[in-house]
Amino acid sequence: MPAERIREHTVPVAAARRRRLRADQARQLADLLRHQVRTGGFPGGVLPLEGAIGHDYRVSRNTVRQALDLLRTEGLLERQPGVGTVVVSEKYPHGLDRLQGLAETLHEHGDVTNEVRTVGPVPAPAPVARRLGLVEHADVLYIERLRRLNGLPLSLDLTYIPMDVGAGLIGCDLENTDVFRLLETLTGQSLGTAEITLEAVNADVHSAAVLEAPRGAAVLMLERLTSLSDGRPVDLEFIRFRGDRIAMSGLLRRTL
Amino acid sequence: MPAERIREHTVPVAAARRRRLRADQARQLADLLRHQVRTGGFPGGVLPLEGAIGHDYRVSRNTVRQALDLLRTEGLLERQPGVGTVVVSEKYPHGLDRLQGLAETLHEHGDVTNEVRTVGPVPAPAPVARRLGLVEHADVLYIERLRRLNGLPLSLDLTYIPMDVGAGLIGCDLENTDVFRLLETLTGQSLGTAEITLEAVNADVHSAAVLEAPRGAAVLMLERLTSLSDGRPVDLEFIRFRGDRIAMSGLLRRTL
Repeated sequence: MPAERIREHTVPVAAARRRRLRADQARQLADLLRHQVRTGGFPGGVLPLEGAIGHDYRVSRNTVRQALDLLRTEGLLERQPGVGTVVVSEKYPHGLDRLQGLAETLHEHGDVTNEVRTVGPVPAPAPVARRLGLVEHADVLYIERLRRLNGLPLSLDLTYIPMDVGAGLIGCDLENTDVFRLLETLTGQSLGTAEITLEAVNADVHSAAVLEAPRGAAVLMLERLTSLSDGRPVDLEFIRFRGDRIAMSGLLRRTL
Repeated sequence: MPAERIREHTVPVAAARRRRLRADQARQLADLLRHQVRTGGFPGGVLPLEGAIGHDYRVSRNTVRQALDLLRTEGLLERQPGVGTVVVSEKYPHGLDRLQGLAETLHEHGDVTNEVRTVGPVPAPAPVARRLGLVEHADVLYIERLRRLNGLPLSLDLTYIPMDVGAGLIGCDLENTDVFRLLETLTGQSLGTAEITLEAVNADVHSAAVLEAPRGAAVLMLERLTSLSDGRPVDLEFIRFRGDRIAMSGLLRRTL
């Protein structure tokens, strides 16, 4: 094969390989920087200069740029003229170790307020009735809330509560109080356990609009079935957290 | 105001309100169906007809269609001519109650295989060194793996391991064995605990390509710092799970 043709073939392949390697390195760097953003590792929320990051992490300035682009796309960073790259979105820590309401878990970070979009009795669909231990189509209280932390949309919560408990919630201050706290007050019992499931989904158009997030934004979906301490399930929730505003943390053990 | 002008104003507002209400109901229905998809609630993976779903959930057929569209966009369902709406993506359950490797936690669902994209020593960047209790730039073993379940991409894992332990991993069967199991064999100790953080992020272009997912697909990011039973941190991982293939489940308690 003539040298010309070999070169024609080799150069694009080598360039593609370099681009791939740089993308891999950028992802690697972005994950380390993301951790620092989340844990307040940059004093004043300002990142070091690209050259300094490159030096610290032993990567090229192009790789640093690509990593910062990645975190900008996630909505965590922004480039501000005359200041540099700054942290613009704080991710709030939500504990995975203990069952807590949103206002409880985030009390150090500000005020949780709830925009109640819907509240009222509905006949329980079969899967809701089954999980709450009710007969099909028995009335349940359905509550839909947009929850904000310091005024910013954090999550959209759909909640089903058996009517014997739920009736007492109508007229309560749902705008400013966690449902968890109200359930404990109304039943005179503390909550016991909750079965939770976490998933990552892309926000549909309407959910994105409600959460004031871009269309398709990554959402942390939490499904939670909470029981009273006597074991009776009283609260089935489907919660969409804005992915750029929440991080769930906990401790796992190898042996139970 | 002439009646004509009132109607001109009222009709679009009423239509917009109906669309919003339908979107809210579709989201509500989609969450209930998603749970059933995840838990194998549809025999043979085939959903009932739209009319039957509408009857069961007391919503219009248009609302059912919009809910199914939503789950199709998430990649969970597909419409198959002559069959109906079928489940096309199984979400595998990953436990949040116990610290387990991927092959361990998914052993009932099939074979986990790992495509090792990179393995070798690198100088530990400052945040890696700090979390693993090493001096900055001490060598760590860096492993990058694309993990598959029954051949389908499930997660992209970036792993850092202190070199005194990591050296023993080079040459091990990383393709077919969880790093957790190898760590326990090499150190003669069981693992103790892991600090985990879960986030939902949109996949960047390159990560999406590696995971064979659409650009911007929702990814469940797991950051995990695992320690041996003697308390020494030995494994720092950044794991991107495809959002359409994994659900993390666990039990939370109100009091510890």
